[in-house]
Formats: sequence, C-alpha cells, structure tokens
Amino acid sequence: MIRIKNARVMTMVNGTEILNGEVWTDGDKIAFVGTPTDEQLKTAVFEREIDAAGGVVMPSFKNAHTHSAMTFLRSYADDLPLQEWLFDKIFPMEAKLTGEHIYWLSKLAILEYLTSGMTASFDMYFEPEAYVKANIESGFRTVLCGSVSGEASNIERLKGYMKQFNGISPLISYRLGFHAEYTASYELMEALGELSRETGLPVSTHISETEKEVRECVEKYGKTPAELFDSLGIYDNGGAGFHCVHLTEHDMEIFRDRGVYAVTCPGSNAKLASGIAPLCRFREMGIPIGVGTDGPSSNNCLDMFREMFLVTALAKLREKDAAAFPAADVLEAATAGSARAMGLDDCDVLAEGKQADIIIIDLMQPNMQPLNSIAENIVYSGSKQNVALTMCAGKVLYERGSFFINEDADRIYAKANEIINSMR
Amino acid sequence: MIRIKNARVMTMVNGTEILNGEVWTDGDKIAFVGTPTDEQLKTAVFEREIDAAGGVVMPSFKNAHTHSAMTFLRSYADDLPLQEWLFDKIFPMEAKLTGEHIYWLSKLAILEYLTSGMTASFDMYFEPEAYVKANIESGFRTVLCGSVSGEASNIERLKGYMKQFNGISPLISYRLGFHAEYTASYELMEALGELSRETGLPVSTHISETEKEVRECVEKYGKTPAELFDSLGIYDNGGAGFHCVHLTEHDMEIFRDRGVYAVTCPGSNAKLASGIAPLCRFREMGIPIGVGTDGPSSNNCLDMFREMFLVTALAKLREKDAAAFPAADVLEAATAGSARAMGLDDCDVLAEGKQADIIIIDLMQPNMQPLNSIAENIVYSGSKQNVALTMCAGKVLYERGSFFINEDADRIYAKANEIINSMR
Repeated sequence: MIRIKNARVMTMVNGTEILNGEVWTDGDKIAFVGTPTDEQLKTAVFEREIDAAGGVVMPSFKNAHTHSAMTFLRSYADDLPLQEWLFDKIFPMEAKLTGEHIYWLSKLAILEYLTSGMTASFDMYFEPEAYVKANIESGFRTVLCGSVSGEASNIERLKGYMKQFNGISPLISYRLGFHAEYTASYELMEALGELSRETGLPVSTHISETEKEVRECVEKYGKTPAELFDSLGIYDNGGAGFHCVHLTEHDMEIFRDRGVYAVTCPGSNAKLASGIAPLCRFREMGIPIGVGTDGPSSNNCLDMFREMFLVTALAKLREKDAAAFPAADVLEAATAGSARAMGLDDCDVLAEGKQADIIIIDLMQPNMQPLNSIAENIVYSGSKQNVALTMCAGKVLYERGSFFINEDADRIYAKANEIINSMR
Repeated sequence: MIRIKNARVMTMVNGTEILNGEVWTDGDKIAFVGTPTDEQLKTAVFEREIDAAGGVVMPSFKNAHTHSAMTFLRSYADDLPLQEWLFDKIFPMEAKLTGEHIYWLSKLAILEYLTSGMTASFDMYFEPEAYVKANIESGFRTVLCGSVSGEASNIERLKGYMKQFNGISPLISYRLGFHAEYTASYELMEALGELSRETGLPVSTHISETEKEVRECVEKYGKTPAELFDSLGIYDNGGAGFHCVHLTEHDMEIFRDRGVYAVTCPGSNAKLASGIAPLCRFREMGIPIGVGTDGPSSNNCLDMFREMFLVTALAKLREKDAAAFPAADVLEAATAGSARAMGLDDCDVLAEGKQADIIIIDLMQPNMQPLNSIAENIVYSGSKQNVALTMCAGKVLYERGSFFINEDADRIYAKANEIINSMR
C-alpha cells in the first residue's frame, strides 16, 4: 500500500469540501480516505509514505477530448481559421503519419498530460495499435473514441477495434464513435445508430464546433447535427459531443433527454475563433459537462489549468455575468464530469474502491497564497507548476518535475523533432 | 560579469528572430549580445557562467498594470460583478490595511511575478513607502503610478510622492496618475492636467473598464473618460490607460494622437465580465499596447503566460478571426510594449547598454516540443513552469523554483495568512 499523509483531501464526493486526513492506495485502487485510527495505522503495511506537506490531494483531471499524437503539429500552423487549418495544413501532414510516429508523438502528449495532473484522455486518432502501446508502456489510462469517417463499410473497422482493444489492459477501453457529420456519409451514420441500438453502447463525436458546420448540415439534411444524430438513433444510449459551441435549444433538449455529455474545449474554440459554448445554459438544463484540451495543434497546449480558467472566464464574458460558472462547478466538470463522459465511472472521485487516479497540489507557492479559498485558488490562480505528484492506477507517473513512464523524456523530444523534420 | 551561454537569444530588437549565442551582463546592464570571438572570451572575467542549455534568453516580461498588495484578497470575493466586488467587498477590507501589511503582501506578489518571468510592475496602491521598501529589499523593479482620488487638494500628496520616490533607487520610479474618473472630482482632474502641462510628464489612470463607467461619465460630463481627460490636458504628454475595454473610435483617435499606451488586462476583464478590449483596432490605428495582470483579487493570478494567451485568444473570439493578434505581436506587447508604457525604455529589449532584465525559458519540457516555432510555443503553449531563471538589474532573483529576494518565501506566506485572518 501507499500512504499519502498530511493532506487536505478534496474527495469531490461532497463538492469541494476539504477534509484533513490521508489517502491510502492498494494496487490500482483507493483503500482508505479519511483520518486513520491508531489501530488502522498499526496494522497497515506501507511500501511507501508520501508526505503531502499540507497540499491538496484530489482526483486527477481527465481530458475528455483530445488528439494526442497531434503534438507534431504544435505551433506548425497557427493563426488560421478552422477549415483552412484543417483541410490545407493538418490533413496533408497527417497523411504522412506512420504507427511508429504515433507511438512517439503520443508519449510526448502523455508527458504533458502528467505535468498538468491529467491521468486519462478520451482520444480520437489513427493507428490505435501504436497509441495503445504507448499508453500501456507509460502506465497512462486512455479511452479510445472511434474515429471512423467516409463510407458505411468503415463500420466494420470500428467493430474490429471494439473487439481488439476492450479487455486488452485495465488501462485501455474503446468506445463507439465517429469523426463528425461533415466527414461521414449518411449511410455510415445510419450504421452507427444501428450498432448503438444492437449493442446498447453510447456514441461520441465532434459536434457543432463551428457555425459553418451547423449551417451546411442544415442545408444538406434539413436538420442540425444533433437532430440528425438523434433521428438515426445515434444518441439512444447517450455518448459525448465534443465542442458543442453552436447547439440550438432543441439540440440541448436532445442532449438532456438522451443523457449526452457536452464536452467543452474552450482553448481550442478560442484559438480557432469558433466561439464560446453556452455552458451556463447546459448546466441550467441539466446537461452533464466534461472538459477537454482538444489536440495540441489547435490549442496549443495540453494544460487543464488553462482550460479550467477559460471555462469560467469565457462563460462570464458570454453571459456578461461575473457570477457565471463558479469555481466548484469547474472542478466538478474537469474531474468527475470528464471521467463519466469517458465511461470512467470508477475514476471520478476519491472513495474506497475507486481507481487510484490522484494528484497532489502544492499550496506552498506564491500563486496559492493566502488560503482564502482553496477551490478558487486552484481554478482561478492554479498552474501546472502546482502539480507536485500525478498518480494513475496507483502508480506515481510524475513527481516534482520527474517522469516515471519507462522512457527518457529527452529521447521523446528528440523523436518528435525528428518526425516533424522528416515530413517538411 | 555574468555570462549566459548556449542560448537561443530572442532580443526582441528584430521581432521574435532567434540568434544562437550568448548574453553577458556587467552590473545592472547588458554588456554583450551575440557570438563572442575567442579574443573576447579570453579577456572577459566572469563571476558566474550560466548554461542556458539551449533555452531561450529573452527580455523579461513587464507587468504594465497591477495592484500588488491585493494578494490578501485573492479568492476572497470571486464570482461577483465589478461594482459590487469593488464597493462592497474590496474597499471595506482595504480600509483595514496598514503599511506593515502592504510590505508583506507586496513581497508575496513579487514572488509570483518572478515565477512568471516578470521583473517590473506598474503598480497603483496605497502606502507607497512600505511598497517601495519591499521592492528595494527584494531587488525588484517597480514603477509606482499615482493613485490619488477625491478632492483637488490631494494633488499635493501626489507632488510629494513624486519628489520623495524619484531618485530613491535605480529600481524605483514614480509617475503621475490618479485612480479613475469615477473616484476623482472634476477639480482634481483639472489640477492633474495642469500639473502635466507644467512638468511635461505623462499621466496614467484606469479608463473605460466597464460599460457602466463610460455611460455614467457621459451622463455626468457629456464626454467619455478619454474625451474628458483630453479636454483637461491630462493626455498632453501621453501616459497609459489601464483596461481600455470600452474605448470609442474617437477615444482611440485621442490615444493615437497623444501617444497614450493602451494597457490591456484580459484576465481581469474576463473574470469580472467587463468585456474584451478591441486590441486589433488599437494595433490598426497605431496605438501602442502593453499588458498587465491587474491585481490578484480580480484575476486571480499574476501570470504573464496566462495573460499572453488571453490577449490573442480573446482577440480571435472578438474579431471571429483565428488570424487576429498573432504570437509575435503578443510577445512584443508583453515585453517592450509594457516596458515603454511604464517609462522603462532602457528595459525593453536585449542590447548592449540596456538594463539586464532577462529571463531564460526552458524548452526541454513537453509543452515546448517539438520546436516548430519557438515564439508560438511560448505564447500558445508556454507556462511559468518554463521559466528557468529571472534576472532583474543583473541580479538573479529566481532560478529553477528557488527565490533570491533576501526573504524566506514560507515566512511571506505565513504573514499573508496572518494578515487576512486578522481582518475577518
């Protein structure tokens, strides 16, 4: 067992309430949360004791939407609108990617996730074999989201991946999904709805990221993307919608009625000038919310602290209301909300029997002082510099600037530069 | 002399161009920038050699608007609109502040500035003696901005401070200024215009931060704040306007014609739901731009990396244009632009004879890889975790997580908590 002591424990079971106490882990699970009795301490056998030094111990952040291996295109094509960025700059470079590339580029993203206290990503990209290998080797948790596009026959590939990857490792799961309405044939989307009904599984996809996407969908089908998906049964078992910047009121009713998670990516939506998602309205309607970084080519960083500030700051600007989307709601969305959007219901909060996906936040840094409100300090003032430790499935993968992912960080940096330089 | 070697030098003299080379400092000044000859290296005597390890050496960031000592109110009254936040929560607590409080609370802010690569602040607050003492002891550079308000007779206090603090230390300067139109009598503003004409000095103040402020000024005077100030001669010698969220086209013409700096504080303006300043229009019109964090009660952190991302991200959202306000312009505004807005023309870029206000950015971290564009990596993906070293006036004040400001950081944290707890 590992003992984390001398901690302010924010379990997220009762919102952002703080308990002074300890968290113990056993294997990949949480074994104890609270203040141990002398008897408990006498009988417990610890392989390691970690002194949190009065820091916050809380559930790790989960990245509910990303394209990890796009690290190679960070700062490669900035300051362009989405459609030009995607079709002229990104797709041609992605066509050159091999599995070997994806393997190294994913490891680079995993390093960055860990520095920001993230222990899981909901990832949509090519070459899942290479990506899965990178994650298992690193000890990082990932949920792969189906990214099929084009013709209906591609659904067979998706079915193959579902069989291939679910069960391969406790760290890996694969969920039904497709890229987006604007890259999928009607027949493919029909087949996805059918598959969801057959299997009872949720379906996740990009949705209503730009005005153009919604307008063209309405022109083509006479329906918004959410209406189209719902008419095909795609949301019959829930799922997650990535971006959700331009949902209509009717779209939101569909999300609410079907229990679809709205995954917001404010950094990417701002940088690509796509707009600000109506998060306050989502919350009013009872739509569950998760937070994602999107890929490192559109963001450009993979930093949940930046995203958390943007979630609330952009909501305040959009609603012209400084009280909009307060800190506690942001923390809920970035931890439990994101976890549940990914199907990681056992990684959502700190409680006995849950997965030991835990971070320690160092409060003895100037941006965290004084301690007027710890939750507000984390959301409004926090930085990845405050992440003292990141643990995934009971294993410490990052601690005070050092990585423990079975690979040298400098080697990963060298590989990433080699890959992009070979493509120019 | 101090030698910083093995560096990518971004001087900001020619934009964000990178030179491989060295920077040498002698006392508080830069003695050399470039690639030294063998002869130069043979004759130079270095007290210290710093290996930048391939990192970026660039001008430090300057914080062109803040209220440093408001650290005690960080996370004290979040999620409130500006007027309620200011009049109901902030002013009553500020009334309890003593000089001793200001001294410790300012030191807390200085620690935070250093972690984010800032070496100077344009500060507006009470009790300048205590604040000046904290800055001189810490080795931090500060420009105090007059913060008088109320009756015309208060101008005498401003004149006294100008005499008292200008010349007290090479690190300290004091500039004419007042709090804002809405806290000043007409007679005080008249007296400020007169003082500016007499002395030939610029005047700085809060301006057009909220719609309410502008509307009420127009109701009262039949003029916007900028029109009012200009009619009184306040901008005859330039100055800086803090916030500038709701400037009209005519206001912008005044700023351009008078050479007034627009200092933007996007984090604070977003968190208080004040709006997004029209930075692209400022740039089109040739209005010079600086960047500030505003105080830690409204932001809540003092992090130039967050501000830089917000400068460009909010401009992109406002203009619905992903090409708006590119990375190079953001870096220019946060370094040279801010420095010049504060009258620190000798701290703007890296060149022989300039002040040695320098930072080293560590590129060997996952958020900075691969090296497609270093300037874009810094603005879009950078974090204060990348700040390896912060040097002010030739002295290293922060290096890899440790502070060298003649005071123990933990003691400062304890004092800050003690102060706020004594006031509740």
